[in-house]
Amino acid sequence: MSELEGNCLVCQSGGPTAVINSSLAGVIEEALNHECIEEIYGGLNGALGVLNEDFIDLADESQQTIRLLKTSPGAALGTCRFQFKKQEDLERTLDVFKAHNIRYFFYIGDSECMAMLDRLDALAKSQGFEMRVIGIPKTINNDVPGTDHCPGYGSVIKHVATTVRELARDNEAIGKGDYVSILETQGRNAGWIAAGAALAKRRDHPHDPPHIIMLPEVAFEPEKFLADVQKVLAKEKFCLIVAGEGLVDMDGNYVAVSSTTTDAFGHVRLGGTGEYLRSLVETRLGVSARSCKLGIAARAAAHCASVTDADEAYLAGSAAVTQAVEHGKSGKMITLQRAEADTYKCEAGWVDLSEVASGIKQLPAEWINDDGVSMNFPFVKYATPLIQGEVQLAWEGGLPVFAKFRGARVDKLLPAYEF
Amino acid sequence: MSELEGNCLVCQSGGPTAVINSSLAGVIEEALNHECIEEIYGGLNGALGVLNEDFIDLADESQQTIRLLKTSPGAALGTCRFQFKKQEDLERTLDVFKAHNIRYFFYIGDSECMAMLDRLDALAKSQGFEMRVIGIPKTINNDVPGTDHCPGYGSVIKHVATTVRELARDNEAIGKGDYVSILETQGRNAGWIAAGAALAKRRDHPHDPPHIIMLPEVAFEPEKFLADVQKVLAKEKFCLIVAGEGLVDMDGNYVAVSSTTTDAFGHVRLGGTGEYLRSLVETRLGVSARSCKLGIAARAAAHCASVTDADEAYLAGSAAVTQAVEHGKSGKMITLQRAEADTYKCEAGWVDLSEVASGIKQLPAEWINDDGVSMNFPFVKYATPLIQGEVQLAWEGGLPVFAKFRGARVDKLLPAYEF
Repeated sequence: MSELEGNCLVCQSGGPTAVINSSLAGVIEEALNHECIEEIYGGLNGALGVLNEDFIDLADESQQTIRLLKTSPGAALGTCRFQFKKQEDLERTLDVFKAHNIRYFFYIGDSECMAMLDRLDALAKSQGFEMRVIGIPKTINNDVPGTDHCPGYGSVIKHVATTVRELARDNEAIGKGDYVSILETQGRNAGWIAAGAALAKRRDHPHDPPHIIMLPEVAFEPEKFLADVQKVLAKEKFCLIVAGEGLVDMDGNYVAVSSTTTDAFGHVRLGGTGEYLRSLVETRLGVSARSCKLGIAARAAAHCASVTDADEAYLAGSAAVTQAVEHGKSGKMITLQRAEADTYKCEAGWVDLSEVASGIKQLPAEWINDDGVSMNFPFVKYATPLIQGEVQLAWEGGLPVFAKFRGARVDKLLPAYEF
Repeated sequence: MSELEGNCLVCQSGGPTAVINSSLAGVIEEALNHECIEEIYGGLNGALGVLNEDFIDLADESQQTIRLLKTSPGAALGTCRFQFKKQEDLERTLDVFKAHNIRYFFYIGDSECMAMLDRLDALAKSQGFEMRVIGIPKTINNDVPGTDHCPGYGSVIKHVATTVRELARDNEAIGKGDYVSILETQGRNAGWIAAGAALAKRRDHPHDPPHIIMLPEVAFEPEKFLADVQKVLAKEKFCLIVAGEGLVDMDGNYVAVSSTTTDAFGHVRLGGTGEYLRSLVETRLGVSARSCKLGIAARAAAHCASVTDADEAYLAGSAAVTQAVEHGKSGKMITLQRAEADTYKCEAGWVDLSEVASGIKQLPAEWINDDGVSMNFPFVKYATPLIQGEVQLAWEGGLPVFAKFRGARVDKLLPAYEF
């Protein structure tokens, strides 16, 4: 098959992760390997940058920057919560691509983005504009379907489980059967992140924290929760609870809503679940309780990122280029596939965008124990390989140094777009 | 001078830090070097363990455990918020010491403990019981007087400043002049910890976060705060705020109190300052805001501890033993002294317990800029050396492993004590 010649464009979208830039580095370095790719453009702020022709020349960035990129949190190209909604947006996008001869479009984002990419791919085909559209999954929430797991997830649960191990030593020094500690994690509608805290518990060490994991999948009942806490305090010096921010009650209402505002997608902004549980414990049980809310600091915690996750994020990026260039694939999302083997092995694969578009991968109910507050061995077996290895940051003067693009702008070729 | 022969006892007290166990390791390893010290006992839960004769045999612990101790958060002996208040407690303590022939007492704690130790030292002298009482400072709050800085502080601000660097990359990817991010730190009455976030700002990079540091030393005025945030958003893509939990208003009242409960010392339990500021920003400025509350996870964050801090904590522990054994010192607290030199150098010294007892070292007002929300170069010069070097934890299976004493109990020799 003859290779398609032209320029490539890569964008980042949605909430950043500790390793989304590693996927970007994978795209850039692999794109450099292929002569059919002429220019390597980065689109600023995801879909917004595409509509606005806000492109930078990534080949102009230094090798040092690309190396640092692999260990830098955030999204070096900027991100957005915006999706193409209107047909006009899709048509504008293709106009931009035609003007800049962009034949390869790599978009790093969550499952909502994949729906957008699928429509874009169909439109390009219908217009007879030959190009390759490939999605690269990312999210700390691990809820993208079609892939065994999602780049970004391993690092955030490594950070959460590490924090649990550390908090446990602190809590144990203080507690005398009268101390409750609550760690609130991100995770709007699924307990994938909170569940990851289960890795902190050593096998065959039933006393190890976390003692209670509160998942959005399990309806919150205050009386059961308080009884669970009391049960732990009767046996242990302290009770360490990990709670996903998106706990819901029996009626499906969020247990704690810290704000009446909603974000650009109309999602209720959550938070305060940890504080709510803390207050409930202090008021009802009369024991001391403290809460921590890692919030977005957890997804940004590159200093506690997983090598496995960072490497797989890079692999997803480079595989996107390989699939597009060498195999002529388009309309696909790159996946991570776990090989059937005794030891963990992960390879890149692909799935049709239409199969994953806007879908959500739930935390399997059968991985939650009957008690509703702990995870079983199949979950631990699934998640453990994802947190292996410690990413070494570049430290200077006691603090980490991260990549920042110099960002040489590409000239705009079209009239400005109103949207 | 002939060395005093007998047993030694070491305890830990107050809130744990990432390096309080390193001080404990310093005591244990140095004590082993001196033949005049026969048994090395660890008292469980600080002063409580002394009154209760809850001692373990530290010489019985494995070398592997002591090595791990140097990088383990929490307080391996357990801690307490209890202080001897009554004369009876002091007399009981001396009875316990006499019964166990404890001639060396090393107590790792904050300035409130030093007052207790001072009284104990005086009572021993008045009873003609020859012993050495030495305090070893620890606190993340850096408010112990008489020492240039306090073991525990360097590590917590390294973690806070690292988190700011990481959050900054995340926030920058999202913000378009309309995004506020708030990081709440511990620090009840002093801004030492929040101030440490200033280290994240590179010299001669005025745009670097943190953009605003909210200190308990500067009375909180909502209108000024909102104006400061707007000023930042007019210039920057995002506004990253670091706020100490103990902000007070013009009348000296806490800005946010998350609970009506108080702790064992009658301190109001703080929290919710970050959430309060977040809500204020969203309501009044109509921009998106997110908050994170590191809480005690920051002081436990051994995975981001400073080598300088850990080494100095160890030095404080070993110097306590040396001062007591080789120099016959008693009634002293070990200090860290910064040598007058071009490059940072720190040595252990000592100060009379009476000089530091219950005192508080304030954050110097002259280190806070006139804007009230940033730190100047003298602070940066003071704090930068304390965060140098990255402690390497023992990682197993993707998570850190920490020391835990097997805890061989020492027989109790006295009737139980009622208190």
